[in-house]
Amino acid sequence: MTKTVFFISDGTGITAETLGHTLLTQFPTFTFEAVRLPFTNTRDKVKQAVERINRIACSEDSAPLVFSTLTDPLLRDHLSICRGEVIDFFAAFTNPIEQILGLKSAPVAGRSHGIGNLNAYSSRIDAVQFSLQHDDGSASRDYSQADIILTGVSRTGKTPTCLYLALHFGIQAANYPLTDENFGTKILPDPLQAECSKLFGLTIAPERLYQIRQERRPNSAYATMEQIRRELRAAESLFRRAGIPYLNITNFSIEEIAASVMQQASLMSKNLI
Amino acid sequence: MTKTVFFISDGTGITAETLGHTLLTQFPTFTFEAVRLPFTNTRDKVKQAVERINRIACSEDSAPLVFSTLTDPLLRDHLSICRGEVIDFFAAFTNPIEQILGLKSAPVAGRSHGIGNLNAYSSRIDAVQFSLQHDDGSASRDYSQADIILTGVSRTGKTPTCLYLALHFGIQAANYPLTDENFGTKILPDPLQAECSKLFGLTIAPERLYQIRQERRPNSAYATMEQIRRELRAAESLFRRAGIPYLNITNFSIEEIAASVMQQASLMSKNLI
Repeated sequence: MTKTVFFISDGTGITAETLGHTLLTQFPTFTFEAVRLPFTNTRDKVKQAVERINRIACSEDSAPLVFSTLTDPLLRDHLSICRGEVIDFFAAFTNPIEQILGLKSAPVAGRSHGIGNLNAYSSRIDAVQFSLQHDDGSASRDYSQADIILTGVSRTGKTPTCLYLALHFGIQAANYPLTDENFGTKILPDPLQAECSKLFGLTIAPERLYQIRQERRPNSAYATMEQIRRELRAAESLFRRAGIPYLNITNFSIEEIAASVMQQASLMSKNLI
Repeated sequence: MTKTVFFISDGTGITAETLGHTLLTQFPTFTFEAVRLPFTNTRDKVKQAVERINRIACSEDSAPLVFSTLTDPLLRDHLSICRGEVIDFFAAFTNPIEQILGLKSAPVAGRSHGIGNLNAYSSRIDAVQFSLQHDDGSASRDYSQADIILTGVSRTGKTPTCLYLALHFGIQAANYPLTDENFGTKILPDPLQAECSKLFGLTIAPERLYQIRQERRPNSAYATMEQIRRELRAAESLFRRAGIPYLNITNFSIEEIAASVMQQASLMSKNLI
């Protein structure tokens, strides 16, 4: 079964989409067709959205779902007349939280994913710059400013995780690849020795890494099962010997790796709430 | 006033935090102290969370706020006995959506930010790789695989926006910097000519760019107001002449730039819901 789902917001639509996506994953037998309507912040734009929702309601045999994070009560009223089933985020939660805090809310559009605190925002941009400069072993003489250094063999998710940590949490994340060259000596490479307490290892099941490397460089020496098993064995034994905490990321998404690393390494977000 | 806020989840905690953050931005007079408890997916871990919440309830003069996205009804019951004010995400919405869809939900932990569909997930990882390879004018001979090419003068948010589009939506986003060299000829640089329909310009107020460049390279020629005004004028006139859509990002966060570019360039997310 397919159903159209609208994500309607006066800002980026990230909250509406996160909310809706999380709820809909609990109904795996349905297929959902997403329509994103960000920056719906005027009466005219809401009117256009209502028309679009009503057209879908006519053409499909059931009302579309509408996840709304409109903040302005007037715009929410305008939306409520549509022929979709509206799940109104602020209507559900604002009142309970006002009661708890003993305070009226001050509805402002687009606040949750705007620039907000300029210092916190700048720290995210700076962290992205840092992660790019310290990607894949680059600038490894200078790890003093790093909050964390991810290490592991090629294709264990180091780079995307560093970028995710930087973009979302302003964490200065470097990464250092482990290769055959490093395994010869059985001790930590020099740049890592100096900042041992910032190290965090990533590892993966050989079968999954085989799949990933074969897609990337089919039939190369780099993608043989023998090479992969040797690298992973050597990396994990290095982690254990040097007392580096590590994580097996085989079934983990970037978001899950990032959340786990932050939790295990006690990293704090520099993004204020 | 300061209040402790818990984000408790059986997965990454991203939804709990997005939910809570969005709601709390509507109460700007409060300061909130965040405690993140991801991967709270067993009875023991919920028990530990309850103890931690209760300790805060004792030490502060009011109950802490607890945003929960626990999916398992049993774990939610265990949490409900804590002395915090629990905002239970699934309790609020699951029932209405079950009614709308005429279907019982199938609660599974950690589904919203897990790997999910492996193809969609791989397309995000590949897009990150693409964006890194095509950052700052690199590999500009090969824009055929790009979904979008952001262009603009130095420090207009091109790189972080490309990485955000890649990480979140699997969009293959390249970026090409405009410099004095490009403005001499008053026509589009060669690599951009060939893929004109994929171009999207970013611009910014001179005063804001001055601030950013001065922080980066204080007192350099690059950071003078004269240089900045000249570059921005030339870039905007190039955008207009070549019919390139463009966006002024002065008051925009990365998330807002990404959402606007996607909307204006009709880019679709490759991440399935």
